[in-house]
Amino acid sequence: MIGEYSVEEDFLNSALNAEGSFIKTEDVIAWVEQENARISVSVNQVRFKEMNSWNFTNNMFNLKHESNGFFSIDGINVSTNFGGIDSWDQPIINQPEIGYLGFITKKFNGVLHFLVQAKIEPGNINYVQLSPTIQATKSNYTKLHKGSVPKYLEYFRDRKKPKILLDQLQSEQGARFLRKRNRNIIIELFEEIKVYDEFVWLTLGQIKTLMRENNLVNMDTRTVISGIKYGSEHTVRKDIMEYIKYHDNRELLRSAIAEKGALNSTRNIIAWITELKCRYTLNVTRKAVNSLEYWLLNDYEIKHETGGYFKVIATEVEISNREVSKWMQPLIQPAQEGLIAFVVKKINGLLHFLVQAKVECGNFDVLELAPTVQCLTGNYQNSATGSLPYLDTVLMAPKEQILLDNLQSEEGGRFYREQNRNMIVMVDESFNEVLPPNYSWMTLNQLHTFLVYNNYLNIQSRSLIASIPLL
Amino acid sequence: MIGEYSVEEDFLNSALNAEGSFIKTEDVIAWVEQENARISVSVNQVRFKEMNSWNFTNNMFNLKHESNGFFSIDGINVSTNFGGIDSWDQPIINQPEIGYLGFITKKFNGVLHFLVQAKIEPGNINYVQLSPTIQATKSNYTKLHKGSVPKYLEYFRDRKKPKILLDQLQSEQGARFLRKRNRNIIIELFEEIKVYDEFVWLTLGQIKTLMRENNLVNMDTRTVISGIKYGSEHTVRKDIMEYIKYHDNRELLRSAIAEKGALNSTRNIIAWITELKCRYTLNVTRKAVNSLEYWLLNDYEIKHETGGYFKVIATEVEISNREVSKWMQPLIQPAQEGLIAFVVKKINGLLHFLVQAKVECGNFDVLELAPTVQCLTGNYQNSATGSLPYLDTVLMAPKEQILLDNLQSEEGGRFYREQNRNMIVMVDESFNEVLPPNYSWMTLNQLHTFLVYNNYLNIQSRSLIASIPLL
Repeated sequence: MIGEYSVEEDFLNSALNAEGSFIKTEDVIAWVEQENARISVSVNQVRFKEMNSWNFTNNMFNLKHESNGFFSIDGINVSTNFGGIDSWDQPIINQPEIGYLGFITKKFNGVLHFLVQAKIEPGNINYVQLSPTIQATKSNYTKLHKGSVPKYLEYFRDRKKPKILLDQLQSEQGARFLRKRNRNIIIELFEEIKVYDEFVWLTLGQIKTLMRENNLVNMDTRTVISGIKYGSEHTVRKDIMEYIKYHDNRELLRSAIAEKGALNSTRNIIAWITELKCRYTLNVTRKAVNSLEYWLLNDYEIKHETGGYFKVIATEVEISNREVSKWMQPLIQPAQEGLIAFVVKKINGLLHFLVQAKVECGNFDVLELAPTVQCLTGNYQNSATGSLPYLDTVLMAPKEQILLDNLQSEEGGRFYREQNRNMIVMVDESFNEVLPPNYSWMTLNQLHTFLVYNNYLNIQSRSLIASIPLL
Repeated sequence: MIGEYSVEEDFLNSALNAEGSFIKTEDVIAWVEQENARISVSVNQVRFKEMNSWNFTNNMFNLKHESNGFFSIDGINVSTNFGGIDSWDQPIINQPEIGYLGFITKKFNGVLHFLVQAKIEPGNINYVQLSPTIQATKSNYTKLHKGSVPKYLEYFRDRKKPKILLDQLQSEQGARFLRKRNRNIIIELFEEIKVYDEFVWLTLGQIKTLMRENNLVNMDTRTVISGIKYGSEHTVRKDIMEYIKYHDNRELLRSAIAEKGALNSTRNIIAWITELKCRYTLNVTRKAVNSLEYWLLNDYEIKHETGGYFKVIATEVEISNREVSKWMQPLIQPAQEGLIAFVVKKINGLLHFLVQAKVECGNFDVLELAPTVQCLTGNYQNSATGSLPYLDTVLMAPKEQILLDNLQSEEGGRFYREQNRNMIVMVDESFNEVLPPNYSWMTLNQLHTFLVYNNYLNIQSRSLIASIPLL
């Protein structure tokens, strides 16, 4: 177990290093801006029938690539007893293959550094965002796209050489992806490694600092980072524990490593999840894309009659960098900005997160643990007061109680300029409501504990957890 | 967290009590024999078309009950890259509803006692076996069978009153059930409760002692008991730790509560599971029951051409007890006895279990952790030497290295006289083989840790873990 302690200590140490051995944090922002200036990206909407290699199947159940690779847009009917609507139709992204989202790490001056890539995605706001060392679908790494193999892939494929610090299956957006999971990996190398132009070494502290910026650290980075555990009280180095004791503002870090003091035992949380998984039903059946109720399929897009939720658009993408790449693909375009937020409160002297068990149509196992407020596609800014639990608590929080507030992008390879407001809001002890049955208080350490097992925390929770500053 | 410690201590204390406050352990055996003598059970094979209320659907995809409740027998095609066979057809039990398997417990003289039922199931060897306080499918408790509501159901439905000690979703046999899960619950009552004739209060130590007998403690009891955690070194009462220290033969108990000394960290085990879940594929598609390759459907049964594996039989059941009940249902009849066994070895002074990651067609998430050897339906007694990893190690183990060896039944409501040999075999330090990629060493404490999350340990592993004597 000595090995285990040291991995967690290495992660924590990296998170507590505000600067690393290479590029300065403030220079990373300038570097990404410069990368952005060097390139041009155009995304033009085209007709579905103009999209090379993409076709609707004869039964209209799927819009898919002729290679059967990448992903398809499928029609589904959803029925559930969760929430206000019993049954609805929608298009959904179906991508059964498991992709890699992986970081290479290496110690410099005793501190773990992450090899971060400035990566262009057509749907990104800012185009270039900081992404993991590798982002590869199976179609990528089996060369289905006839292009080159992703850089650094060989380090992930040969598992004997590197030390594996983290390797987890994690879900994607359950409202948009049908049971999609990615493999989140962090490996540590001990050998020399070539660093290509668009890559830099950053500490975890630097990455977390950069997450304070809008739309700079991409979703794939955030999901991988979220899986990191920072140990627990009795494993953390003494000097760090002393440091926490004398710094009252280290309450998020304390909650991350707390072993005792949780309001609800982990056993009770499992019992609560079991009860809800038995209570709520979720049935998803296939349906033709052109027969989805309230959805319109025209030459250019699949959209909801109200203009709400999201659209599936056919696009032609052109990226000019060192060389020109050009391809066609469907993208998902949201109707408006969403909001995800955790409400946190000090209970028994320890920060607790208000977690929501949420059924989403693409979930692998009925429900996952979501943030207190998650309205990705709803028009929350105009919503009636009190329509969504705790929405007002979040939106009306006084400035000094806002621990985190920024805009973060969804994955730019599938989503067109989709950004969501990410918030963490502290409430005081007078916040003492009776929770709805699908809400519960958990410490950050408990959230981390569930996170390492499959399909417990949804990607919105993980995005927020990744952003939590420990410095 | 004080609450958590005390639940685990209560369980451990109950497991260490060889006798309880009521019936003696040896008298339980006599009592069950006596119950058995009082009743008569007949199971007669009939024609499928004679089975009232059970019909094949027009497309022949299912044999189902006209209420759409209970379960159905479906045809499936399975394809996988795990194991030696790429693709096969088989019938499978489909029962999407989640049932209750629940124990009521209560403290007498400070020791937790379990309310155990002597329950008749038509498929049981011995007919009467010791079962949980309640075994209820949704069809049962929504009164689909038009009979009476199961005894004690009200205590499980009103979650506000009892203290919930355990509440987990656990899988059924992946080779026989399609993604079936049951809800395993243990609750504690503090009030007076009526004890009906066929119920007795037993300590966990008594239940575990009774598991040494063949076919006496039923599968449902074993799966619920398996989910119990006994705490860890730093939570266990001091006097118990002292007791363990001075008793070398408490090695299984030591492994159950060990926090340190594991060969593989939990983080590495998760990485190993992730790698295997990505490596192995599992595709299950529906198929008509009368078009399953190598399976024959005749008037009486669905059977494999070779006579191997299992048969689906149509039966008429008659049970005469205080009153006569009579009904018809399909049952699964195995072709022969199976074997499930854990190989255990002392590593770093601590007992480790050799665990197999196994893909089975009905698994919810590709693979689950299975015992070292699991050949439920194979004819292991005549198998060629070395055909199955570690089969010889188990079958040829010298007597003094066999920690457990008995016959246990599968669930008698679905399986007709199916029993499997349950074994735990110790190997010495000279056993030092390179493991196949889907095998790994884990401590009992690690197995317990994974067990409490959904769908990690299969029912065969859990059956063996439940049987482990801690006394």
